[in-house]
Order: sequence, then C-alpha cells, then structure tokens
Amino acid sequence: MKKISTLVAIIGLAAAVPGRSGDLPGVPASTNIPGQNYPRILPDLRVVFSVKAPAAQSIIFGVAERRYPAVRDANGIWTATTDPQMPGFHYYWIVIDGRSLDDPASETFYGYGRESSGIEIPEAGVDYYDAKNVPHGEIREHWYYAKTTSEWRRAFVYTPPGYDADTSTRYPVLYLQHGSGEDERGWPMQGRVNFILDNLIAEQKAKPMLIVMETGYAHKPGEPNMGLGPPPQPKGAPPAPWDLGKLFMPFEEVMVNDLIPAIDSAYRTLPDREHRAIAGLSMGGMQAFQIGLSHLDLFDYLGGFSGGGGGAGGPVDLKTAHGGVMADADAFNRRVRVVFLGIGTAEPERMLRSVQGYHDALQAAGIKHVFYESPGTAHEWLTWRRDLHEFAPLLFRDEKPPRKPSFWNALTHDFSS
Amino acid sequence: MKKISTLVAIIGLAAAVPGRSGDLPGVPASTNIPGQNYPRILPDLRVVFSVKAPAAQSIIFGVAERRYPAVRDANGIWTATTDPQMPGFHYYWIVIDGRSLDDPASETFYGYGRESSGIEIPEAGVDYYDAKNVPHGEIREHWYYAKTTSEWRRAFVYTPPGYDADTSTRYPVLYLQHGSGEDERGWPMQGRVNFILDNLIAEQKAKPMLIVMETGYAHKPGEPNMGLGPPPQPKGAPPAPWDLGKLFMPFEEVMVNDLIPAIDSAYRTLPDREHRAIAGLSMGGMQAFQIGLSHLDLFDYLGGFSGGGGGAGGPVDLKTAHGGVMADADAFNRRVRVVFLGIGTAEPERMLRSVQGYHDALQAAGIKHVFYESPGTAHEWLTWRRDLHEFAPLLFRDEKPPRKPSFWNALTHDFSS
Repeated sequence: MKKISTLVAIIGLAAAVPGRSGDLPGVPASTNIPGQNYPRILPDLRVVFSVKAPAAQSIIFGVAERRYPAVRDANGIWTATTDPQMPGFHYYWIVIDGRSLDDPASETFYGYGRESSGIEIPEAGVDYYDAKNVPHGEIREHWYYAKTTSEWRRAFVYTPPGYDADTSTRYPVLYLQHGSGEDERGWPMQGRVNFILDNLIAEQKAKPMLIVMETGYAHKPGEPNMGLGPPPQPKGAPPAPWDLGKLFMPFEEVMVNDLIPAIDSAYRTLPDREHRAIAGLSMGGMQAFQIGLSHLDLFDYLGGFSGGGGGAGGPVDLKTAHGGVMADADAFNRRVRVVFLGIGTAEPERMLRSVQGYHDALQAAGIKHVFYESPGTAHEWLTWRRDLHEFAPLLFRDEKPPRKPSFWNALTHDFSS
Repeated sequence: MKKISTLVAIIGLAAAVPGRSGDLPGVPASTNIPGQNYPRILPDLRVVFSVKAPAAQSIIFGVAERRYPAVRDANGIWTATTDPQMPGFHYYWIVIDGRSLDDPASETFYGYGRESSGIEIPEAGVDYYDAKNVPHGEIREHWYYAKTTSEWRRAFVYTPPGYDADTSTRYPVLYLQHGSGEDERGWPMQGRVNFILDNLIAEQKAKPMLIVMETGYAHKPGEPNMGLGPPPQPKGAPPAPWDLGKLFMPFEEVMVNDLIPAIDSAYRTLPDREHRAIAGLSMGGMQAFQIGLSHLDLFDYLGGFSGGGGGAGGPVDLKTAHGGVMADADAFNRRVRVVFLGIGTAEPERMLRSVQGYHDALQAAGIKHVFYESPGTAHEWLTWRRDLHEFAPLLFRDEKPPRKPSFWNALTHDFSS
C-alpha cells in the first residue's frame, strides 16, 4: 500500500530550494515548511528544535504543556532536544524572553485561540490517518446564511468517494465539532478527518457518509457576546456557575435552524434522525450532548471525545439531567442507537474525572454506551483521531437502502432490464 | 446588498471573549484573531500595530517591503503607527531584535515561503471580493495521484453556484496559479477567488466556470530538486541563466498528464481547448504562458498577472519565442481567443519592465491582447484580485450550449414536452 504522510502532502508539495541537511541526525518534521531542517525528529521520537535569535536572553520550546529550555551557541543559535514525544499532532511555540511566538519553520494550525506551530510525530505501524492509495473524498468549503446570527457562515463538508459519480445515492450525515480555542479547520487539518474516513470506507469498515464541520461559536446581534468561559465576577467573589446550556444556545439554534436545513438542501442527505449523528471533542463533545439530547427527533447517534454530557464535571443525576430524556433507561436505549464516550488515559485529571464520572453515571443508570480509552494519549489530536476511528464504524450500520427519487428507480430499471 | 468582510467571516466567527476595545481609535483589522484589538485601522487607513515584549531591544513592524520602527512604553508595549496603507491584503511581520516573526494577534497566510501574518485594509466603495447575499459556489479540496511525481497531490477546485443542483450542465475550466513563495492556498485565502466569481456570476458578468488551483511546484523522484531560483554558481562567477522552461517542466508535465485528466474525470467539464483557460500571477503567470503556449491544443485563453511570456524580463523575439507559435500573428490571433496581461502601476521596476516589455513586443508583432493596468497597486494581492475581476468576464463568452449526454437530452425532452 503506497502512502505518504498527510501533512507532507498538504504542505510539502511547495518544495522550495531544498534544505542542506548534510549529516544531521533524524528527519525534518512533516509539518515543517518545505526546505526547513528544524524541528527534526530522532529515531526514538525525541525532537530537536532550533532557532537563530542572537539577541534573545532566554528561549524555551513549549510543546503543548511541556517546556524545554534551549541552549545558545556562539552564533546565537538556540537548540533544545526533548524527551521522546507521543506520536500524533502537538501544538508548539518558541518562548522568546517570555513571549510565546510561532516558529517560522513550521506550518501553522488554529489552536489555543491563535495560529500556532504544530509538529506531527510519526506513529510506527499506523497509517489509518495517512493519504493512501484508496479512493479519496473531498472536503468542501460551504457557505450558508444563518438567520439566527444574521451572517454568512462557513462549514467544511466531507463528501465520501463516489459522491459525484453516482448522483442517485443519498447519504447519512455526521455533525462533528472541534474543541475550545480551535475552529472548523481543526478536524480537516489537525484531525485528518478525510483520510480517516477514506481509509475506513475503502476497507468497508465505515459506511460512506457526509461529515459537516462548523465553528462551534455563535453570537446573536444585539446580545452580549459571552465568550465561552465562566462569566467575570467581582474580585474575591467565588467563580460564577458555568452555564454551558446558555453559552451554547446560540450555536444550538444555528445548527438546528440554519445549518442542518442548509446541508439537507445543498447535499444529497438522508434527512431523518436515523441517518444523522452528532459528535465533538472536548467543548465540542459537550455541545454534541447538549444539542443531541435536546433534539432526539434529529439525532440517533451521539459521540463525546474527551467531553460529553458530564459538562465540566461534578455529579450528574440522569433522572433530571438533559431534560430527563435518560430517566427511563429502557426507553432511551430503544430510542438512541449509539452513545459513545472516549478519553485518553494520559489526559489531565479534570478531563478524566468528568468523562469517567459521566461514564459511571450512564452505567449506573443502565444507559447503553461505548466507552473507549485511548492508551497513553493526552488531551490532544491523537486521542480524537482514534475516537473518530472507533466511532465512525458504529454509525448507520443497519440503514435502509438509499432512497432514490422514483424516476431514478424507473430509469435504473429501464437501463438494466 | 448585505455583505460581510470575507476574512471576518472566515476567521471572525470563532468569537472568543471579546476584546475590551474601550475608546481606542479605529477598528481591529478583519484579519485579526477574534477578540484581538491590534492591529487597528484608522479612518485614513493608517495602521496602529502593537505588541507586548518587555525584554525586546528593538521592534520594527514590516508591512510587505515597508518598515515601521515601534516605540516602547513603560510597560514594555511597543507601538507603531504607519502612514496610510493601500487597500487590499498585505503580508506583515514583527521584527523583534532583527528576527522576523508572526504577530500572535493575526491570522496567518502562506507567503514569502512561510506562514506570515496578514492584514486586510478595507477598500471604500468596493465589494466585488466580499461575501455578499448572492448564491455561493464551493471550494473543494481535491486529491489526485500524479504519476509524473509519484505522489498524491492536492488541488483546490472552485465549483460555481448550482453545480450540484443541475447535474446535466458541463462547465469550462480556468487553471489559475499562485506566485513564488505562495501555494495553492493563495487564491482561495488571500485572493478570495470564490467571492470574486460568485459576485461576477450573480451579475451575469462572467460565465459559470470551474477554477482549478494547484501548487506550482513539482519534483520528480530521483531528479535534483532545483528549487525555483537561478542555479548556484561558484563564488565570483556571473549568475547562471535562469532557465524557466526547464524549472517549470516537471509541473508542466503534472498539469498536462495528471491534473487536467484528473479534473476532466472527476468534474463535469467541457474537456476541449475552447473551454479551457490558464492564468497565473507572477511566477504563475510565467508558468501559464509557458504551459499554455506549448499546449495550444489544450488552452484557448491565456492570462498573466504581473508575469507572463516575458519571463524574467529582457528582449523577446516573438518570431522564435514560445516555439514560434506567435511567428504568424494572424494565425495566432485566429487560434487563441484571449491573451491578457495585467500589472499594478506601483509594482517594482523589474516587474513593470518585464510585463510592459512583453506587452510592447506583442503590440509590435500584432498579437491581439488585453493590457490592464491596476492603478496604484504593488506586487500584491489587490493587483491580482483586480486582474481576475477583469480577466474572468472575458472567458468562454461565445461558448456553444453545454453538452449533455444523449440520454439526458431525451430525459429533458420527455419531461418538458
């Protein structure tokens, strides 16, 4: 099976004058700008970062939450070698004299509420998120008008291989949300959503489906923009309760009243709850559970990756939570096809507690669900790529045959008889 | 006509906690990360840049080729106010102690061979590149396998409004190239190609068409990667001649042997020369003329924006240049529908000389062409947005009725009679 590294493919084609890497150890990261020798990845997955900054007093390379102080040589080149990194995608920055800045040698990715440098650490023997020699779907930039917020908004829509070739087929849809500090570019870029689905579909492990990725922020004109953190309190006062339901409400209205109708109008969808799923990561998982459980007339599948119905954590009473839809477990289990929760085992305590706590509550209440633990991964994209890789095969498995307009059936019959 | 600023729409939806802009003069640039107050644009189009960097010894804001030294206040905040800027998109950087870095407050755009900060300066009374209340096409990320270079490559493909709704219509195609140091993201992001076409099509000023945007770099496995500059010479030797034909040849092979067949296979194109155009900006304009004039069996329309058949400048003998295809002007004029050259009047001398010189040579030889001068704009994206806005309406004007497979004609007839 021929394969290339996705990000080499995405960004590496713009090959400028090649870097003269000589006998440097390791290989340049696939996320580097073409021709850039640093950062480099050593065989044991340690990373060598390097930047020339003769006037700097101190340089630290920050990889997600980890910090690696650099050492200056006589030419003003600062270098740091990390400990072995987990495979997958990590945001990173150069902290110059206390100021966190992007590495000019790296591609940038929207995360942490800004454009950030990123590094892809290869995962030995794993290629489900690489661009392989299989039929490829497309990711489309789709603009639609949202009355809720009086604005044109952008969604990315994955269409599976063959979508254009056979215009008689209609498809189920997964609505898939990013996390806080990221946006609708997260799943296409950091998440590699298209290659994960292309590969699953090629192996017949997942049904062909559309995946819609929108920005999980919305703000109605004339209303205060609350942002997504707890509301500010007077100095010394205890933190205000974090009313996620209220915070996510404008986006919920956009999704239900604007986005879903726009997608069902522009694409050949199967526009019923049996063929519609909602999932998301971290904040997006909380949104998926809020929106999905408030609209079981719209969704039959729910996924929460490192975030779900447990909100920010704390006890959950499933007799009253989510408007009481889980109060009768048998009725809920008959009504909702799949509930999926995922978590990385190396995530921070509060994420583990929130997701594990919700898992325990579901279990105690007899709510059927899939609980997936990603070994060794943090609150980062490898956890969420794995979640999607586990979740997508569970979707739309026993769907009815695709609907066709009646004249198409006649046409097919005429031509095949 | 409702409109929003494109880049506000692209990036501004991810509204985090809003910045507290108080009574600051001017408005935040639409290219800022949501919630960031700086850079700000004053009513006279001066820009106020600001960054906190207490430990820095010197800070200069660089906007394209212009430099604005900043002044430090007691809190370590550096600020610079520029002179009035030309409208349109400019790359910019913060030069900290001599090191050019991105502004964490800005979106990033691939240009100058790296991810760079960018600022959009509004253009009073001009909205042809904004997202307006008109039907919108899509931009699709399309992957195809190039045998020439043995790799999966990514193209962006603009499909016009209605492409999916009426599957009986076939479309002409414009192949549109970026410039040196940029890549296939340039036209969709900095160029706003989709909104320019959406608006032209809505006003019936341009025919609905597909636009294919690929990376103008290609490298065959096993061959030296020459990059795109003149070959290195021994110290003191005169610079080696810059053989553009040879440099662009791998990409020419990719386009002719891989990309065009892939597009004609995946999309409902009108796959003949009468319905195919090629254009590009700067280096991409040189590529368009090289590839177009070498393959007049494939292309009927040629566009060069700040770059064309004159290569890097110098005298052009049209009796022998381009394989002699222009030696007989009448024959050439009968054969090629449109030749378009564009230049910004404020471009650097060498660009002006090269494009003006080629324009003069065409004129002297009697080669019909359109020569467009963009008033006051530099070697930057506003020149190229204007070029596209002038060029697209000239394309495919007297095409024959769209071809339909014969059974569709029958079907249409059956249903309409």
